Amino acid sequence: MQNLYPHLEANKELFLNELIDLLKIPSVSANPQFAADVRKAGEFTAQKLKEAGADMVELCETAGYPIVYGEKIIDVNLPTVLVYGHYDVQPADPIELWTSPPFEPVVKDGKVYARGSADDKGQFYMHVKAFQLMMQNNCLPCNVKFMIEGEEEVGSENLETFVKANKDRLKSDVVLISDTAIIANDVPSITTGLRGLAYMQVEVTGPNRDLHSGIYGGAVANPINILCEMIASLHDENRKVTVKGFYDGIIDVSQEERDMMNSAPFDINDYKKHLDIDEVLGETGYTTVERTSIRPTLDVNGIWGGYTGEGAKTVLPSKAYAKISMRLVPNQDNKKIAKLFEEHFKSIAPPYVKVSVEDMHGGEAAVTPTDSIAYKAAAMAMETTFGKKPLPMRSGGSIPIVTMFERELNTKSVLMGFGLDSDAIHSPNEHYGLYNFYKGIETIPYFFKYFAELSK
Amino acid sequence: MQNLYPHLEANKELFLNELIDLLKIPSVSANPQFAADVRKAGEFTAQKLKEAGADMVELCETAGYPIVYGEKIIDVNLPTVLVYGHYDVQPADPIELWTSPPFEPVVKDGKVYARGSADDKGQFYMHVKAFQLMMQNNCLPCNVKFMIEGEEEVGSENLETFVKANKDRLKSDVVLISDTAIIANDVPSITTGLRGLAYMQVEVTGPNRDLHSGIYGGAVANPINILCEMIASLHDENRKVTVKGFYDGIIDVSQEERDMMNSAPFDINDYKKHLDIDEVLGETGYTTVERTSIRPTLDVNGIWGGYTGEGAKTVLPSKAYAKISMRLVPNQDNKKIAKLFEEHFKSIAPPYVKVSVEDMHGGEAAVTPTDSIAYKAAAMAMETTFGKKPLPMRSGGSIPIVTMFERELNTKSVLMGFGLDSDAIHSPNEHYGLYNFYKGIETIPYFFKYFAELSK
Repeated sequence: MQNLYPHLEANKELFLNELIDLLKIPSVSANPQFAADVRKAGEFTAQKLKEAGADMVELCETAGYPIVYGEKIIDVNLPTVLVYGHYDVQPADPIELWTSPPFEPVVKDGKVYARGSADDKGQFYMHVKAFQLMMQNNCLPCNVKFMIEGEEEVGSENLETFVKANKDRLKSDVVLISDTAIIANDVPSITTGLRGLAYMQVEVTGPNRDLHSGIYGGAVANPINILCEMIASLHDENRKVTVKGFYDGIIDVSQEERDMMNSAPFDINDYKKHLDIDEVLGETGYTTVERTSIRPTLDVNGIWGGYTGEGAKTVLPSKAYAKISMRLVPNQDNKKIAKLFEEHFKSIAPPYVKVSVEDMHGGEAAVTPTDSIAYKAAAMAMETTFGKKPLPMRSGGSIPIVTMFERELNTKSVLMGFGLDSDAIHSPNEHYGLYNFYKGIETIPYFFKYFAELSK
Repeated sequence: MQNLYPHLEANKELFLNELIDLLKIPSVSANPQFAADVRKAGEFTAQKLKEAGADMVELCETAGYPIVYGEKIIDVNLPTVLVYGHYDVQPADPIELWTSPPFEPVVKDGKVYARGSADDKGQFYMHVKAFQLMMQNNCLPCNVKFMIEGEEEVGSENLETFVKANKDRLKSDVVLISDTAIIANDVPSITTGLRGLAYMQVEVTGPNRDLHSGIYGGAVANPINILCEMIASLHDENRKVTVKGFYDGIIDVSQEERDMMNSAPFDINDYKKHLDIDEVLGETGYTTVERTSIRPTLDVNGIWGGYTGEGAKTVLPSKAYAKISMRLVPNQDNKKIAKLFEEHFKSIAPPYVKVSVEDMHGGEAAVTPTDSIAYKAAAMAMETTFGKKPLPMRSGGSIPIVTMFERELNTKSVLMGFGLDSDAIHSPNEHYGLYNFYKGIETIPYFFKYFAELSK
């Protein structure tokens, strides 16, 4: 394969401007008010795939947002790479903490700032551009299929149905996904494990209407106080999750693997300084690196109830709510955990309140192999462009679809992401380094090259 | 004094329509976006006082909203009644739970539904109309001064400055206030004790920005979880408040007085049914009636943090907030309690978070005498119009200005309110019974009559 770098160099500004156009579309899948924009981002993606040279490009309708499909089959005897990504983004709240508006991309200090810049528009778009360069230079070394969805941030609700109905069309030898991070720009890594997720919403109801806290306070259970007490009881003094059965069946990671994880470059003081915290907090007996990768956790992602406006309102509210999610590790079934959580949360509800629990969405934990041809191709590609062998790394986040692809398509995934943990994905001022964007476009063709060579 | 009832009868519709006009003005003092409306309600009040026959009517400017003053001095040798009320109202949130819009009054089933209908527009307006009837019929038996403020729902911040600067102008023999409830329409009562208030806002900060809960969850303290744990620790297993020094100095109410309180009509099953709760919850060793009157309490009035929109956002937020208020009893100084709370809350903050505490507003608890001329006049007036002697009653709410009047003006108050606990003040669908509105207008002139007679 010829060196595509000069072609990338010549197109950097163009590629960045295209990405900026995509980032301008507020494709927030969680909020129905952005429905037209989510669809628009899908249409944009399809159009760019077509322009890059893909055939059979289609906006495949689902019960929710469409899945963009496109392919280039050059020879049925060659291996096939299925590229997965998502064109939807997280909500931008809290908007007031953004330095520039989330959907008006700004390039500053070598980074593009916008919601979705790293997660995942900036990352999946690298694949579209790398594909385009290979097509323009007639050096695509294997077949490629694209499946870019619009519901990843809301649990990929309709993806499984689509995959089940399109097993032949999606047949491939590897699923290649760029939706994760490397350790640092000079410490490349490939994600080999992902935590699962069970995301719940709880509602605690006290009296049947908001009450005056002066007249009823002290005599009628306040659902906010009760919700706080229930949430407080979800961790014990060792920060273990108290949900009954939560840890059942988890296979302990060997001390050897733990030692290897803990030998990767990580400075706890830099970590604390970067977050401006005096102390970290997590499960007793595990390091920070372990707590965020091989251990399951429980976090409140949102809480609300009563009067939250300016000033002082002396209300004893009728209801209080929380969004609570659990990160899961292999052998924790997310559906079973959701059920255990619901049972536990209802069992700890005192008789003064009524409790309801909703299973919002979930995904299974996954561990990807490090001895596969695809992993080796990814490692060789990164070594070529970064000049360093990438480290295998377990990540704390979740990409629930990895296990679904394995189950439904019988295809393993490679998680070759180019982001950084500091990209502030899901946070205000999300950004993606231009270095990372271009490094991805540079690296991806080498993956195709090595994957084709190793598959022979 | 002649019987004014026929004149009230003849004016019922007119008086109600005037009240409805006042209720249409969204005078929410807590929210700056309603600033012009709050002022408009003050102007309306001043205009109606003038029309009713008051002299020297003035919108007295303060650092906040104006205080409406007006007076009728008929003879400096006669006693003087200072009527206090407030034209501002609580916020209407949550608006979606109102059956009719909060500022479009609706008369239904003998009640007028609107924010402020009972608290306190409907109640202070009874005084304006009773005064008008006495003026029109030349039977005002003593001097009267009106002081109607616009900041009661935000802690009467500028009232004390005004009172201090106008001691001569406000000189009077009693402060008459209708901003409380009777036990039932056939069980009249006069409020003789009010709880104080300390209203705090707390902010808990974890990391310096919102984080992805997959990448940092389990390793970095989540400020929502921590806030919940801190709030949970504010009550012990007997539902006593754990703030250090909270109960210091409280004088226990005698068993005799407690027995009397508990003999007043109260049905715990009706209470629970009315609120749709299976169990009540409060301080061990006290009845519901005691818990809401002679005991101090702590309630979370609002809580918020993280993602509270639709769908699922996996954020580990930087901050979490709560509004926490304490109802206080005599001998608990609200400023001291606010200080104790701040110290306690900071002392229980774990090292992984930063905590800030703001003292939003407060007021002292008050007990009014039952052996004064003014109390006797109120009791005789109510007995005349209800046909039953009113019961003295300690109330759970707070009117912080009562102790301030005593301190600054050396004048005791009489709390002759006509509302019901079920009026849903501070709640959606606040309403005020037309029976209560007219009964107040009927009763007030008798108070003036008996007060003048007993003062001779």
